[in-house]
Amino acid sequence: MIKNITINWPSIIEFGAGGINKIKDYLKDVKKIFILSDLPIREKIEKLENELKSLGFIVKVSYDVVPEPPIKVLKKLLDPVKEFSPDAIIGIGGGSTMDLAKLTAVLFSGEQKVEDIIGIGKVINRNVKLITVSTTSGTGSEVTPIAVLTDVENKLKKGVVSKYLIPDVAIVDPEMTISLPSHITASTGMDAMTHCIEAYTNRYSHPIIDNIALDGIALIFKNLEKAVKEGDNIDARSAMALGSLYGGLCLGPVNTAAVHAMAYPLGGEFKIPHGVANSVLLPYVMSFNLPKCIEKYSNIAEVIGVERGLSSEDMAKEAILKIKTLSDNCGIPTGLKTLKIPEESIPSMAKSALLVKRLMENNPRVINLDQAKDIFQKAYEEII
Amino acid sequence: MIKNITINWPSIIEFGAGGINKIKDYLKDVKKIFILSDLPIREKIEKLENELKSLGFIVKVSYDVVPEPPIKVLKKLLDPVKEFSPDAIIGIGGGSTMDLAKLTAVLFSGEQKVEDIIGIGKVINRNVKLITVSTTSGTGSEVTPIAVLTDVENKLKKGVVSKYLIPDVAIVDPEMTISLPSHITASTGMDAMTHCIEAYTNRYSHPIIDNIALDGIALIFKNLEKAVKEGDNIDARSAMALGSLYGGLCLGPVNTAAVHAMAYPLGGEFKIPHGVANSVLLPYVMSFNLPKCIEKYSNIAEVIGVERGLSSEDMAKEAILKIKTLSDNCGIPTGLKTLKIPEESIPSMAKSALLVKRLMENNPRVINLDQAKDIFQKAYEEII
Repeated sequence: MIKNITINWPSIIEFGAGGINKIKDYLKDVKKIFILSDLPIREKIEKLENELKSLGFIVKVSYDVVPEPPIKVLKKLLDPVKEFSPDAIIGIGGGSTMDLAKLTAVLFSGEQKVEDIIGIGKVINRNVKLITVSTTSGTGSEVTPIAVLTDVENKLKKGVVSKYLIPDVAIVDPEMTISLPSHITASTGMDAMTHCIEAYTNRYSHPIIDNIALDGIALIFKNLEKAVKEGDNIDARSAMALGSLYGGLCLGPVNTAAVHAMAYPLGGEFKIPHGVANSVLLPYVMSFNLPKCIEKYSNIAEVIGVERGLSSEDMAKEAILKIKTLSDNCGIPTGLKTLKIPEESIPSMAKSALLVKRLMENNPRVINLDQAKDIFQKAYEEII
Repeated sequence: MIKNITINWPSIIEFGAGGINKIKDYLKDVKKIFILSDLPIREKIEKLENELKSLGFIVKVSYDVVPEPPIKVLKKLLDPVKEFSPDAIIGIGGGSTMDLAKLTAVLFSGEQKVEDIIGIGKVINRNVKLITVSTTSGTGSEVTPIAVLTDVENKLKKGVVSKYLIPDVAIVDPEMTISLPSHITASTGMDAMTHCIEAYTNRYSHPIIDNIALDGIALIFKNLEKAVKEGDNIDARSAMALGSLYGGLCLGPVNTAAVHAMAYPLGGEFKIPHGVANSVLLPYVMSFNLPKCIEKYSNIAEVIGVERGLSSEDMAKEAILKIKTLSDNCGIPTGLKTLKIPEESIPSMAKSALLVKRLMENNPRVINLDQAKDIFQKAYEEII
């Protein structure tokens, strides 16, 4: 019997080039709009702002976003938004921007504080329309019930998971990613790859999601390097946007696992960008998981072009190597040593990672403290 | 570049055995519930009704549903529902029941009449929560923006397509299908198969939907005969429920094509059940479409177990034969003659079918009047 699953996605997903121009179609019952976005795309946002104003909307824009956003950055946003009192909040940017927009949407009324909602299912409601527009192909945040903050004092990443964080409308417009610098294209792309692989091989995997995840893996594998090296190649950007959307669709119903849990301390303690941290750890966690994932890795091997005819185990091993090579070819640092992570921090990072239970428990193979240390050590020395 | 698409699905889809028990989780902001359902499952509905009443809800249940519902059956529902004035409408049943529930939800307030909303995008709003629970594995109506009525006077089927018909919550609970008689299991299952095939080979097909459609074809092909012959086999029922859900997910973003358009007069004029009409016509329309669908049919062949090694064209032809054999093995009548459709009605049916432009234009190969007659003729004489 096929097991139970709750699928919880935005009721509208607009995919395709120029999709941002449809945003006004989804604002019919709205008067005041708060837009949160990233400075590098200010020009595009000002164009949108002017268009919306000319249509009679009252629009306020903020660019107060920092990557891997600390809790205090979110807190600073809330009062001005409460004062403005929007009917719709639109987050246009990468994962950090969309996460902040999502959190602002559920918090600005003041009924709950940030501290109240950290964890799973703690948000009590949302009384504002929420629209996301992704400008990187990686995070998938445009369609997920998840937002992540950095607890700077405790050097930890903290996740909020709630159905109220799922946007009403998600717009995935590959043209918005054209200007993205190559190193961000690379790391966000490998983040999307990690979403698909960790959902596909998840302890709680499900056929509905497997289908999407495997297609995402194939799309990202075939297009990431091209998108990194030819930033204005709209075909590659479009395929990456779809692959990343697939990764996002996996996250609510199934979510990620040990790679993401182990990437948290790299971000929280050493400010390694989320995509880089995932990409570096991915092959080593895959190697550890291999005994539990031979069939699924060999399916991955098949869709990423490993030649048929090898044994399943050899196919599986080839898949891991190919994923690592993709990351290398995209110019992402290949190990923790290269990232200048001190070797002596491995035990504390391993401890922190095990605390991210909501993700660790999704991993196809149980990881104890020594094993977590060992995975970090291998990622440090680059021993596959 | 991957082309644009708008994905518009229920924001919550509950899949799995016992899913109906979660219905109360989605009624938190609701007091008065109108349930529309089918008499054969009255016992289950009464249990649900009592449970909801014991939780403090005010519940009214109607079983005023007939298959392939005439417009007047819908009209009769509206006044009592307006008087009751529910906050939520729940349709629990097959396609006819869910379609009537969806239409009641957008019409009972009286702002628009049935005649105003026939066609695409004509509904102006919906002010009531809408939940669907499918009890057949076929229609996919639980997740679609579509509802179909019979115009008895003019002997036509008429479709309403609107985003407001998309339920807020769709529940797909395979246990609800266990008691379904085998002939309905067969015809509804072939309906779901038709949804997947017509979406996959659609003129407006899209990679996001292809992925889902092809998986649906494989699931239905592998499980339909078992579900028909062993009605209480929960594994087969569960796989069919998922395959049917996949078919439904294809319908909003891409929709069906000539098989459905040509099935309309069979339903409208001769009261042939929708699934039977689709199943009978499917292989003949596939044969006609073959020149435009060799690659896609050969992909279908691969997932339904045609042995590799044949040419693409031969694989494609094998796929058509296997689909026809499946329908035969499930006991569905194999041609129009067997269905006692008079041969002399072929010209008028062909004319009617061409009038269903919203579906005909989706077909991968353009069909003119003579070709439509020819397809009906072949379906009459059973010449593949």
